[in-house]
Amino acid sequence: MLAPIMSMKSFASDNNSGASPEIIAAIGSANDGHALGYGEDEWTRRAEASFKREFGPASETFFVLNGTGANVLALSLVAGPGLSVLCSDTAHISIDETGAPEAALGCKVLPVKSREGKVLPEGLEAALGCVGFIHQSQPACLSLSQPTELGTVYEPRETAELARLAHAAGLSVHMDGARLANAAVALDLPFRELAAGVDLLSFGGMKNGVAFGEAVVVLRPELAARAPCLRKTRLQLASKMRFISAQYEAYLGMRIWERNARASNAAAKRLERACSTIGGIELAYPVSCNALFARMPIEAANAVRERHFFYDWEGGLQRWMTSFDTSDADIDEFASELREAMLERGR
Amino acid sequence: MLAPIMSMKSFASDNNSGASPEIIAAIGSANDGHALGYGEDEWTRRAEASFKREFGPASETFFVLNGTGANVLALSLVAGPGLSVLCSDTAHISIDETGAPEAALGCKVLPVKSREGKVLPEGLEAALGCVGFIHQSQPACLSLSQPTELGTVYEPRETAELARLAHAAGLSVHMDGARLANAAVALDLPFRELAAGVDLLSFGGMKNGVAFGEAVVVLRPELAARAPCLRKTRLQLASKMRFISAQYEAYLGMRIWERNARASNAAAKRLERACSTIGGIELAYPVSCNALFARMPIEAANAVRERHFFYDWEGGLQRWMTSFDTSDADIDEFASELREAMLERGR
Amino acid sequence: MLAPIMSMKSFASDNNSGASPEIIAAIGSANDGHALGYGEDEWTRRAEASFKREFGPASETFFVLNGTGANVLALSLVAGPGLSVLCSDTAHISIDETGAPEAALGCKVLPVKSREGKVLPEGLEAALGCVGFIHQSQPACLSLSQPTELGTVYEPRETAELARLAHAAGLSVHMDGARLANAAVALDLPFRELAAGVDLLSFGGMKNGVAFGEAVVVLRPELAARAPCLRKTRLQLASKMRFISAQYEAYLGMRIWERNARASNAAAKRLERACSTIGGIELAYPVSCNALFARMPIEAANAVRERHFFYDWEGGLQRWMTSFDTSDADIDEFASELREAMLERGR
Amino acid sequence: MLAPIMSMKSFASDNNSGASPEIIAAIGSANDGHALGYGEDEWTRRAEASFKREFGPASETFFVLNGTGANVLALSLVAGPGLSVLCSDTAHISIDETGAPEAALGCKVLPVKSREGKVLPEGLEAALGCVGFIHQSQPACLSLSQPTELGTVYEPRETAELARLAHAAGLSVHMDGARLANAAVALDLPFRELAAGVDLLSFGGMKNGVAFGEAVVVLRPELAARAPCLRKTRLQLASKMRFISAQYEAYLGMRIWERNARASNAAAKRLERACSTIGGIELAYPVSCNALFARMPIEAANAVRERHFFYDWEGGLQRWMTSFDTSDADIDEFASELREAMLERGR
Repeated sequence: MLAPIMSMKSFASDNNSGASPEIIAAIGSANDGHALGYGEDEWTRRAEASFKREFGPASETFFVLNGTGANVLALSLVAGPGLSVLCSDTAHISIDETGAPEAALGCKVLPVKSREGKVLPEGLEAALGCVGFIHQSQPACLSLSQPTELGTVYEPRETAELARLAHAAGLSVHMDGARLANAAVALDLPFRELAAGVDLLSFGGMKNGVAFGEAVVVLRPELAARAPCLRKTRLQLASKMRFISAQYEAYLGMRIWERNARASNAAAKRLERACSTIGGIELAYPVSCNALFARMPIEAANAVRERHFFYDWEGGLQRWMTSFDTSDADIDEFASELREAMLERGR
Repeated sequence: MLAPIMSMKSFASDNNSGASPEIIAAIGSANDGHALGYGEDEWTRRAEASFKREFGPASETFFVLNGTGANVLALSLVAGPGLSVLCSDTAHISIDETGAPEAALGCKVLPVKSREGKVLPEGLEAALGCVGFIHQSQPACLSLSQPTELGTVYEPRETAELARLAHAAGLSVHMDGARLANAAVALDLPFRELAAGVDLLSFGGMKNGVAFGEAVVVLRPELAARAPCLRKTRLQLASKMRFISAQYEAYLGMRIWERNARASNAAAKRLERACSTIGGIELAYPVSCNALFARMPIEAANAVRERHFFYDWEGGLQRWMTSFDTSDADIDEFASELREAMLERGR
Repeated sequence: MLAPIMSMKSFASDNNSGASPEIIAAIGSANDGHALGYGEDEWTRRAEASFKREFGPASETFFVLNGTGANVLALSLVAGPGLSVLCSDTAHISIDETGAPEAALGCKVLPVKSREGKVLPEGLEAALGCVGFIHQSQPACLSLSQPTELGTVYEPRETAELARLAHAAGLSVHMDGARLANAAVALDLPFRELAAGVDLLSFGGMKNGVAFGEAVVVLRPELAARAPCLRKTRLQLASKMRFISAQYEAYLGMRIWERNARASNAAAKRLERACSTIGGIELAYPVSCNALFARMPIEAANAVRERHFFYDWEGGLQRWMTSFDTSDADIDEFASELREAMLERGR
Repeated sequence: MLAPIMSMKSFASDNNSGASPEIIAAIGSANDGHALGYGEDEWTRRAEASFKREFGPASETFFVLNGTGANVLALSLVAGPGLSVLCSDTAHISIDETGAPEAALGCKVLPVKSREGKVLPEGLEAALGCVGFIHQSQPACLSLSQPTELGTVYEPRETAELARLAHAAGLSVHMDGARLANAAVALDLPFRELAAGVDLLSFGGMKNGVAFGEAVVVLRPELAARAPCLRKTRLQLASKMRFISAQYEAYLGMRIWERNARASNAAAKRLERACSTIGGIELAYPVSCNALFARMPIEAANAVRERHFFYDWEGGLQRWMTSFDTSDADIDEFASELREAMLERGR
């Protein structure tokens, strides 16, 4: 895969953007003298308090090093050998983590039937059919991505229904919130309501202006007991944790999450509107957050890709991700290139 | 464990210090527009080139998220179920990583008899006695910490002898270089000579002025084939890798490593000299790098600990770590407090 | 699940039958004085030689404790974290081993599109699409069940084509031969030809007259190096191995495998013929070995199930397995009950 | 390692003996028609009831395939990543299982200081020092071997004291009873009293007349919930379980365990007495069960070893194991050869 110098905005992934200036400033501010390592510092204390404000006083937050690490640490608290984690057949933990959950936990990650990226209740029920059957891995956790890998969002009633089914069968509920801010903005709901019914949350900031580090929020506190040790076992304990927690203190405290997610969601909407005026480009899924999946002639896609990098997706789609720093001008330029490529091809 | 606000320098650990200003600046500079994720960026390319300059053109470098992650990724390339990693009975991988290697690799980590933290050839030979015996885990790798957890260093001839024994028995050799710069300065040798005979290296910067991220250097290139995938499986793949690699570009390119390690080693030497003039304090090991282990009355230690935090160590010792930013004045103040506490106690 | 006293033959599974008398006799004969444990005995030596006669002098055989153990030991030689094992979406290792491969190996087991239980070349090719993509588990092994879980068999040219594709992509080929004898009889081919193109074989006898113990046959000898140690790590090393190997010495040497598989296959054929004369019962797959999958009214199935136990299968099917000791009379009685139940229902 | 044909009794291991005739007969009797697999059969039901008679009505028994399997399944119920199992530094799980616990559980197995094979309370207390320290694996289980690998036995008050310490620190207590019958005979106590304070027991019969298969007895029933599934995940679920359970039905019901253990213990005592009359042979540990560890000139040992095989042990010792079928004549012959070899050497 070529690594073009990005003279212009990429639509490849929201991890192609950098960090917000306030985040970089927060890293600099945290570089202030000596502080105990491994989270025994004031920045971490304050950042943990910020998370309690968002997720309630009983929640416990553990800063970790990356998104896969967040998922694995969270799932480690409830799954292991002989057990399974159920998730959408488009889920990152199933498709895109190079088998990290299986390697770390020794459990199965079982894809469940989904629509537009979202686990279907009937899919979940079918997957629960093996409960009590000793020859099959026993479902221990339902993992939901909010938003999904396809940029769609679960309505609160959808999450609630799935959580109800899962809890009734004795499963825990995990939410992969790698882009939770985008869902919060899309649904215009506080984090806490997005996480209603959720026991374990991977809270991501790196796709929305944070430079490095993510967090695991344990919402059912009795699940947190093993987290402090397991965070180290799972290779997720930062020695100079303040450089992560300072970012999250800013991210939550200054509501950078909201500003940034609002910007990237809006950019996606602007691109969606533009596409609706270009003949021959069809969007495969509703655009709720910052991802668009387009069906279009591959030659046209390739022509545009030369200047604005993005990925082919499965099912013959093109994926475009907007970022917190994607401007109206970026979208307009990209749209006009798309339009031109489509016209070119029409001739 | 209390987390005191560090109004003054801590001697608890070299992870209590922050990052060098150039490192913080490098993070800021890397925040420049869009770049592909997962290391497909220019900063990473340049940082990788810097490592090739240090370790030879055949070496391959993989940036990772922390020191335990570096060790686990490196060992993953050679060890697994039914196998064992041999190391000093003081080694970090054996004692201080909450079982991360066992959890990730499913192998045994077997402590070998050591002196002053260093694996003894006769200890290694004894541990190799089980080779070919199917009821015992087969040794697959010898891991050496340079410097050791006790702040001592392997002379090149010591490393060479141990590597020779290991290779002759079919083992790979791993070096845990969490503080490799301190050893390089202590021995006045380039990294490459420290790593002679070594197949896999964990190269650390976080205890010497880097804010976050470490590196695995694969010196026997045929071992590197699985590293790109395993880095993600082992939860060590940074999505915005440039924020790590930019630090290492500066760390190596500007020789921050040397300046910083020289400073912390010198601070330790200054403290060693001061201690030699204080009655009743005895240092347990030679001071080669930035760690001192003192035997002294616990009441005196506790009196000083109130102002300058440090840890009790096993064997009734006190551990003092100096940092790159420990000044002469810091040492002099600390020494004078030690002196006073000892006098106090003598009355 | 009820455990009825089996006053008559079960059609639930070929593990419901016992062992052949010669097998029981072999166990008794092996109980002769002292012998070294862990396979260093004469019975094991002779049984290993029998396997070499079947699979060639370069093959290496390792007796293990059960079928899942055989699969896990075999796959342990080629798969691990960050890697995947590809198999039919009906495969035992994927569906029916309570996640044992994931737990032991830390790899992914990825189902591939199949037809009548057999991996489709186009399914394999699609699954190989991720080769080289660092975010997805890298395929390390193709596992084929011969016969399949649906009782169908791969023709040699089918195995050869799949093995060719797998090897070309750098994968090893494993064959789950839990019922290999049934396939050998069905295809009228020696084991060696069934295993052409195969690197690792799980060779089962427990569903065909053996009381306990199975074998892993390593056909690519360079893969065998770690097997002796890993067999113990994988909990598959019998201390008094002679009680297993003596059974296999008889199983191969006296061609019990052929006699028994011929009997169970013939019983299945007899039942197939009988079904073809009963209105309303449809068989879902070709009957090559000793499994039948019937589509029929559930009330009729339940009526028969009361006397002759068998399982509901997914897709609304009923599974009937014949055994080496299923007699013509057993089949005729079962068929007449099926006929009666169907008539009953028709009234 | 040579595998001599055993024209005479071996003193190498109690797994060199075969099975008791009643055990072979029980296997034959179990070969009676069809029965459901995986333990849903009458033999298993009766054998489970026999275990309840020995260990109390709340105990739950799970038949498994071998001793390492029993240990791993039992420990799987309480240990995992980030946790440790504490045991004697001579324990089988630590030394002789090729890393099976680490591979299956991903935990650490930590040797604790022992005397004559028995965990010392002060050793246990020292090992518990890391409780609550997030950088070290947290002790989850204390595993005691009864008898120990050195043939010594824990007095009930010793077990009780260790169990009390372990439970007070939140650990479970596992007993590796691979030779529990020998301890029961040595202490003249019922199994239940040996297991007082124990939560999980590996109950072995294979070293005392059983042909194959062992059992896990869960004495704290709330720990048993995951055992049925995990038994399959851990490769320990026998498909034709009746061939194992029938042996244990006989082993307990006919008190074969007692007769056999009495015989092997008595043989060891006879050999001990004989050794006391041979100059130059010193026994290293008290002889409570069926193991003797002798210090003697290696030439003399080698001379005897040629006819009666046994192993060199660490510490320059020779290990002699007696078996249930070791006769007085066997001992007398062995002793006379020892005497002769020692005299030979004296000339």
